[in-house]
Amino acid sequence: MKEIVAIIRPNKMTRTKEVLSALGFPAFTASKVLGRGKQKGLAGEVSFEMRPELLSQKGGMKYVPKRLISLVVNDEDVSLVVEVIMRVNRTGEIGDGRIFVCPVEDAIRIRTRERGKAAIN
Amino acid sequence: MKEIVAIIRPNKMTRTKEVLSALGFPAFTASKVLGRGKQKGLAGEVSFEMRPELLSQKGGMKYVPKRLISLVVNDEDVSLVVEVIMRVNRTGEIGDGRIFVCPVEDAIRIRTRERGKAAIN
Amino acid sequence: MKEIVAIIRPNKMTRTKEVLSALGFPAFTASKVLGRGKQKGLAGEVSFEMRPELLSQKGGMKYVPKRLISLVVNDEDVSLVVEVIMRVNRTGEIGDGRIFVCPVEDAIRIRTRERGKAAIN
Repeated sequence: MKEIVAIIRPNKMTRTKEVLSALGFPAFTASKVLGRGKQKGLAGEVSFEMRPELLSQKGGMKYVPKRLISLVVNDEDVSLVVEVIMRVNRTGEIGDGRIFVCPVEDAIRIRTRERGKAAIN
Repeated sequence: MKEIVAIIRPNKMTRTKEVLSALGFPAFTASKVLGRGKQKGLAGEVSFEMRPELLSQKGGMKYVPKRLISLVVNDEDVSLVVEVIMRVNRTGEIGDGRIFVCPVEDAIRIRTRERGKAAIN
Repeated sequence: MKEIVAIIRPNKMTRTKEVLSALGFPAFTASKVLGRGKQKGLAGEVSFEMRPELLSQKGGMKYVPKRLISLVVNDEDVSLVVEVIMRVNRTGEIGDGRIFVCPVEDAIRIRTRERGKAAIN
């Protein structure tokens, strides 16, 4: 089992979710984060309200609102999910985001007490 | 050391926290996430304000507000913490949430520079 | 590759970010979390608006607003980044926070399809 964490543009969330769901990966959590890569912020993308002191910092560094999505999938599904997230999120412009693959040792579905693969399928 | 991540119903947060604290696991972080499992959203649970375009999507898919709690515990405490979280959060209804166990290689308490077990006890 | 997760005081975010950026580690995500360590909450630090029922719980337990920052770095940079985060965030007072080091198996930059080290440099 692996956790796939993708940090993507907010305006790509809906499409990413739709495609993953259509492929049979409907379960994930999403949250708002502030991200900042090598590009030190993207002026045009700062569109939702947030703490102004975080958005505009001394030295011109800025944080960019991003969405973080996280799915736990079986090992054999990692390549597919990574490819799909790349396909939907790649614009070729700075700020497309990144994907990380992290180990997960166990998963438990609380309702049924299922563990491992059964808990994520 | 393992990180235990639980994605649970918002209305179970207080009780989960109280019980874990009573058992000697008071340290964790909590955040608001949007979750969605196989059930594609639970109508009755969407109760707090959030971005409406995330909550009601084309095709009837919905995101459900969840709480994500995260604790780092010693290996020998994993089973107990998982069992306790299951006990408190299991209603038998869809939407009870899931628990993930992930490896953690080191922990450092900033104030004291303690590392490993000492940093999480 | 490792993920370094630091849970720090909100008022240390800007400085932490500036120093990491100056050292060549500009990429990370930040989010607001509620944290609570052994100290069961710090009265003076609860300064931003949030759901009151989370902040003041029965039994006097409180959650403290924290910032969670997360960077993925190469193995050889882990010590430096940990040391720097400790240096900037250590006040010696309870509530300085903690740092966790977690394994990451792969990283992908969506724009360029670079993987591994190339995706985080």
